[in-house]
Amino acid sequence: MSGKNLHFVTLLGSLRKASVNGGVARALPALAPEGVAISALGSVGDFPLYNADVQAEGFPAAVEAMGAAIKAADGVIIVSPEYNYSVPGALKNAIDWLSRLPSAPFKAKPVLIQSASPGALGGARMQYHLRQTFVFLDGRVMNAPEAMVGGAYGKSDTATGDLTDAATKEFLGKQLAAFADFVRG
Amino acid sequence: MSGKNLHFVTLLGSLRKASVNGGVARALPALAPEGVAISALGSVGDFPLYNADVQAEGFPAAVEAMGAAIKAADGVIIVSPEYNYSVPGALKNAIDWLSRLPSAPFKAKPVLIQSASPGALGGARMQYHLRQTFVFLDGRVMNAPEAMVGGAYGKSDTATGDLTDAATKEFLGKQLAAFADFVRG
Amino acid sequence: MSGKNLHFVTLLGSLRKASVNGGVARALPALAPEGVAISALGSVGDFPLYNADVQAEGFPAAVEAMGAAIKAADGVIIVSPEYNYSVPGALKNAIDWLSRLPSAPFKAKPVLIQSASPGALGGARMQYHLRQTFVFLDGRVMNAPEAMVGGAYGKSDTATGDLTDAATKEFLGKQLAAFADFVRG
Amino acid sequence: MSGKNLHFVTLLGSLRKASVNGGVARALPALAPEGVAISALGSVGDFPLYNADVQAEGFPAAVEAMGAAIKAADGVIIVSPEYNYSVPGALKNAIDWLSRLPSAPFKAKPVLIQSASPGALGGARMQYHLRQTFVFLDGRVMNAPEAMVGGAYGKSDTATGDLTDAATKEFLGKQLAAFADFVRG
Repeated sequence: MSGKNLHFVTLLGSLRKASVNGGVARALPALAPEGVAISALGSVGDFPLYNADVQAEGFPAAVEAMGAAIKAADGVIIVSPEYNYSVPGALKNAIDWLSRLPSAPFKAKPVLIQSASPGALGGARMQYHLRQTFVFLDGRVMNAPEAMVGGAYGKSDTATGDLTDAATKEFLGKQLAAFADFVRG
Repeated sequence: MSGKNLHFVTLLGSLRKASVNGGVARALPALAPEGVAISALGSVGDFPLYNADVQAEGFPAAVEAMGAAIKAADGVIIVSPEYNYSVPGALKNAIDWLSRLPSAPFKAKPVLIQSASPGALGGARMQYHLRQTFVFLDGRVMNAPEAMVGGAYGKSDTATGDLTDAATKEFLGKQLAAFADFVRG
Repeated sequence: MSGKNLHFVTLLGSLRKASVNGGVARALPALAPEGVAISALGSVGDFPLYNADVQAEGFPAAVEAMGAAIKAADGVIIVSPEYNYSVPGALKNAIDWLSRLPSAPFKAKPVLIQSASPGALGGARMQYHLRQTFVFLDGRVMNAPEAMVGGAYGKSDTATGDLTDAATKEFLGKQLAAFADFVRG
Repeated sequence: MSGKNLHFVTLLGSLRKASVNGGVARALPALAPEGVAISALGSVGDFPLYNADVQAEGFPAAVEAMGAAIKAADGVIIVSPEYNYSVPGALKNAIDWLSRLPSAPFKAKPVLIQSASPGALGGARMQYHLRQTFVFLDGRVMNAPEAMVGGAYGKSDTATGDLTDAATKEFLGKQLAAFADFVRG
């Protein structure tokens, strides 16, 4: 181990039970380098659609809880499919809520992006849109290496979404190690 | 009047009652050129968060209804704020649902994008992300003129969101006329 | 043949002799559907770097010639590598010059984008940046199908860049047929 | 002064003598905070169009010189117009050359982006494309505040391009101070 212990949290962009992105997110704790713990945030499915009038009456408890968990973490790992060449609405909606919290949980927060998709691009278009959002949020998104898992159905258990491909796991482990270095500075 | 009667529908990206984008959308029917009728689609707030497992049990009625209304229209006018340098999650979520309908309501559909924001850019960043989504949806998004209403709080009634600025109204009327020409080919 | 004869021109974004994108561009004439002729525009390497002070003294002859050829064509096929996650400077420089011509050669012009790259994404990031440029130019870029040739070194003759992969050729032929339909409306 | 002395270099994206972006770049040395020196890099107009075959015979001297100057600097300030909703070809061409240098001058380099334009958006679209390029180059682009100088002709001397607007100068001075903090970490 080459530095202080770190705690990362995963933010999942899919609500489907057998999501291959869910499979990637579930694989991460076992792939983390020594000294790095990874746990899952709550579900973006627990957030209502963002509405400033609702916000005016107070943030939903699920938003407050996720914001606090992100604030406390050493880094956020966003694992998400690409929908319609961009960020899934459900994930963006969660970010829209979190961005309004006075605690600004994403500010200066190290961020890692991962995506899996059946196509060859592996969710790349989603990732670049998400990067633009984090310019505004003033997050610190790691540049390289990027993790875009293409052909994901052939690398996962189709019944559960669990990631099965050994080469992908090895790569994600290396990316996590790079992210730990990035966070430790 | 220079062609067949047209019917456009507006898709609003904000759920806030006093939204300035809502104000823009409400102003459009009165600004439409002769022979063009404009009516509002249902609210994106009536959609659940997209989940493929839910879809497997059947599309929600609100999704089916909006898809049918878009399919029947001669063009769709999307009026939306920009959240976090991109498309609001609630609007993207609606598009994610609509994109799964077997009827493919956006395919070959003429699309016009409008946005209003308090800042100088008027929602520009949202518009370019939305354009990329419509590449996948195979929509036919008009290129020019673009409507990005900056400094929108000074051009609207702050209590209601109603658009009050005469120059903006005049510009939007011209854009609607250009869109009618675009649709009529 | 299902319509009037068409003439498309190819605009190549690479200056390297053995470019795999050059190989793709050279393959197109033989892949074109009946009734479609395809010829190469001049080289973007013949343009000086854009400078408004130079333009004030008159457009370079190479710019005028390429602008006229595009203006006369039924469609433009841009074939280009991706450099640094975006459009090659040399190609963008050519577009910057062409965009200033009073004849506006790209206005309302049907445009097809193709790219090849050694990586898995096949130049996708370049294509979406180029699409944004054509919003301003008011070109009519075809949405689908998209041609992003990944793993291009394994699909080409490495000495010449010539495209050798049969499946890629077949796909490009289908895309050209779709483009012809798109142009004929 | 709150840290070590810093040396920033400016990379200008316009070749026009009376460029308003040139005016912004020339204004920066006088706006820099104490302990920060700013000097101009050579002109991107001195680079040939990128061609891998030319590179194979050796990098042009202007490329080598600019790469060394960037490598030696504590940060790079890119000041550029937006052409056709993206990065000027001449600037992108310079980056394409610099990106091939074995010294990787942009890797981990702090980068600040500024743009000026006559329109309301102030070059925003150019900036987000440039940010995507720096993901690949693994530069460290500052998120906020962003400097997009809209309506630039009214804020500059039209004969020389010199920046004249006091409020813009004050803002740029604050941005430079933020960049110095960002670089010093």
